[in-house]
Amino acid sequence: MVLHRGPIIKVLSAVTVVVGTAMLLPMLVSLYYGERSEAVAFLLCSGPMIAMGYFVGKRTVVPERSIIRARDGFFIVGTAWLVMSLLGALPFVLSGSIPRLIDAYFETASGFTTTGASILTDIESLPRGMLFWRSFTHWLGGMGILVLTVALLPMLGIGGQKIMRAETTGPTMDKISFTINDTAKILYKIYAGMSLLQISLLMLGGLTLYDASVHTFGTVGTGGFSNYAASVGAYDSFYVDMVIGFFMIAAGVNFTLYHTLLSGKVRQFFQDFELKYYLMIVGCSTFFITAVLLWKDFYGNPIESFRYAFFQVASIITTTGFATADFDLWPASCKMILLFLMIVGACASSTGGGIKVIRTALVFKLIKRGAYRRLHPNAVIPMRAGDRNMGPEVMSGVAGFVLLYIFTTMISILLISLENVDLITAISSVVACISNIGPGFEMVGPTLNYSFYSGASKMLLSLLMIAGRLELFTIILLFTPVFWNRNK
Amino acid sequence: MVLHRGPIIKVLSAVTVVVGTAMLLPMLVSLYYGERSEAVAFLLCSGPMIAMGYFVGKRTVVPERSIIRARDGFFIVGTAWLVMSLLGALPFVLSGSIPRLIDAYFETASGFTTTGASILTDIESLPRGMLFWRSFTHWLGGMGILVLTVALLPMLGIGGQKIMRAETTGPTMDKISFTINDTAKILYKIYAGMSLLQISLLMLGGLTLYDASVHTFGTVGTGGFSNYAASVGAYDSFYVDMVIGFFMIAAGVNFTLYHTLLSGKVRQFFQDFELKYYLMIVGCSTFFITAVLLWKDFYGNPIESFRYAFFQVASIITTTGFATADFDLWPASCKMILLFLMIVGACASSTGGGIKVIRTALVFKLIKRGAYRRLHPNAVIPMRAGDRNMGPEVMSGVAGFVLLYIFTTMISILLISLENVDLITAISSVVACISNIGPGFEMVGPTLNYSFYSGASKMLLSLLMIAGRLELFTIILLFTPVFWNRNK
Repeated sequence: MVLHRGPIIKVLSAVTVVVGTAMLLPMLVSLYYGERSEAVAFLLCSGPMIAMGYFVGKRTVVPERSIIRARDGFFIVGTAWLVMSLLGALPFVLSGSIPRLIDAYFETASGFTTTGASILTDIESLPRGMLFWRSFTHWLGGMGILVLTVALLPMLGIGGQKIMRAETTGPTMDKISFTINDTAKILYKIYAGMSLLQISLLMLGGLTLYDASVHTFGTVGTGGFSNYAASVGAYDSFYVDMVIGFFMIAAGVNFTLYHTLLSGKVRQFFQDFELKYYLMIVGCSTFFITAVLLWKDFYGNPIESFRYAFFQVASIITTTGFATADFDLWPASCKMILLFLMIVGACASSTGGGIKVIRTALVFKLIKRGAYRRLHPNAVIPMRAGDRNMGPEVMSGVAGFVLLYIFTTMISILLISLENVDLITAISSVVACISNIGPGFEMVGPTLNYSFYSGASKMLLSLLMIAGRLELFTIILLFTPVFWNRNK
Repeated sequence: MVLHRGPIIKVLSAVTVVVGTAMLLPMLVSLYYGERSEAVAFLLCSGPMIAMGYFVGKRTVVPERSIIRARDGFFIVGTAWLVMSLLGALPFVLSGSIPRLIDAYFETASGFTTTGASILTDIESLPRGMLFWRSFTHWLGGMGILVLTVALLPMLGIGGQKIMRAETTGPTMDKISFTINDTAKILYKIYAGMSLLQISLLMLGGLTLYDASVHTFGTVGTGGFSNYAASVGAYDSFYVDMVIGFFMIAAGVNFTLYHTLLSGKVRQFFQDFELKYYLMIVGCSTFFITAVLLWKDFYGNPIESFRYAFFQVASIITTTGFATADFDLWPASCKMILLFLMIVGACASSTGGGIKVIRTALVFKLIKRGAYRRLHPNAVIPMRAGDRNMGPEVMSGVAGFVLLYIFTTMISILLISLENVDLITAISSVVACISNIGPGFEMVGPTLNYSFYSGASKMLLSLLMIAGRLELFTIILLFTPVFWNRNK
């Protein structure tokens, strides 16, 4: 098939400029902490990227009326994330902080996809500028998934609608009546405002600006990189746990809902179908795990049990991956709950990953309808989500997505299990990457990391992170014959 | 809601008579081997059951034109299997072979559902009559799932169609143009003929009539109970492995296809959509496992590697559960393949369990269509299985079934993991029971058993076996409010 080269080069150039520009911030951090060679590494990457991106982009002419087909859209979004991860990895390699390219690629893909899976065996030995960049990719990735393509691509003269289909998280884009650019600006502001608020609150809790920033990037992007090996557990502060816990939950909410809230429609906000399910799942899981932790006497009193249970539930369902406890040591039933939450994930149009709450809820309804139909074979049962009707096309799309998720997960587990790992490690590695969480169980538990995997497995897991981030179809389509077939 | 009591009592009486009569065979076996007290136990159960079933059944009048609604059908089939398992458990308790009722219930439910999961810690210490009965339940269960309700219920004056919906395994009953009773007779003959052929071939391999019968019951019913702790591995014979392997594969084929074959339509047999997928999965899995076993040098040479790989693949995909090797020691990738095969299961309308090959194949097609639609949003793509078109109703039924299977499995794993077991034990216990396989991994691996579980877990696993056997909806519906709602 013939891809339209113009728009693709235009977008990749823009991505290169954005990543290059973004590197100037960690460069300043490096300079501030007197890490000269790191600052030079950032500059050596940033300069050429900005220059090259700018000139190549400027020279590429996109005809006014060029038509972007679905497959061009998928190709653009897919390659943009693949290229972005490669560009972002360069400073790590150049500075020697992460010498092997595949490791740096894994770490950066994990950053931009807001996964938070790491190959670092000794996080605290890295220069502060590098750790800042590592976390900053979360913030950029979270923003990117929310609005990058919605705002940037239309400015380049490319119709954003087709591409949105590839990138928007969730089964249906809420019908917001204003234009894409306005949406983008509002989302930017909410995202930035939320970040500033969290940084302030964390600094009130005694964190330095640097620490507060790093953990805020990891929170609002639902990423999970920390600058401590013990993650958020390093502070051992009830206040910090609650602040980060709250903001993780907030980052897992559909961001278009915040616009509703800011417009003063408080009741409409709380009546949202998906939000109700989301809060219910968080509530029930926290209650269940608190009860089991108390019963098995893990943390002595109810307050402490609640504290660790709530933080971990919030961290896992939003697919952030911060840890305050080694949850791999928890009872099997608690780990099972966490594994479910990994798969369910956050709300649609949030920065979180996974199957998404709305899809899970619709799957429940599909099952329920199936049972009802067995008893009443001729009944016509409309599928509803809140007060919206879900047509059969939406439902078959949801079922197809969930089954593709399960299928991709299974095939990947099979490939990963060719390494000498136990089944739980293989299963949780794949789920933690495809759902953009980060830590899993056993050999990839919260106190461990992904460094032991072979290069091939790291590449597969990186692709899974990007595929999961882009709602599977985008990346997986690139590997299908039908995509490359000229005649179809 | 109001259930029609007449037909329910009529069917349960008939089931009681059948189970009571069936116990006369193991009684004869007990007598032959001089196990007097066991023979008495069988007689003490058999006599009253036949008498009671006969008289209660005779006294119950079912009006000529009584209408059986879907929910009556589900209730009848569900309770029939629950009651059957209870009745079948009595001789074990009465003779003291399995003193605790919940254990005996688990073992018998495992038998009738052709699961093959056992709570026996020392199989070989049981009297021969008891082991014969234990395996004979497999044979009866396999036959039952094929034709019991298709043949028996219409004779009782109850329309079989509605009930068939609950019991038929697979998404669509192949349109066979003759009546239900004729179908039943043909299936009976094929099933019996297959059993006789296998017994003969095993006796040619040096097995006694007793051993050959026990293993044939386990094979054609795809059950998996053996009278040896080492299962089929006890013979350590290439010939026996191949015979049992072949018949397991054969028992996993859609039995209505054998009618096609016996009618001389050989080409039509081999062109069957599901059969092709089934054989392809068996072939690929065997090849993969053989290769990995060779690579990791488990059995030295290719022939031996193939022998163990083929037997285990055949045993697991047909959900039989016989073992010739401790596959729990195999590399993780091989175990992962086996776990997939557990979930996929055998063909529709066979004696095997699981999701079924045809549903798996249709799910693949659903995913593929989903991907295609992303590229061609307006394309109309008909779903085909072989040369038959699958309407959207069938497809949504298949998707609903698979999602219900996954959902039930997850909830059950959660409940089971409340016990002090590792995740792999919990996962494989549930999958091995709901898919009617028997052995799983770790603490329920092929050399171990389910005895350590609490009574509650054993009850749950027994229900899962029955639910899995009756295609989930039948049993699960009994636990839903909508089933018991008078007004709906």
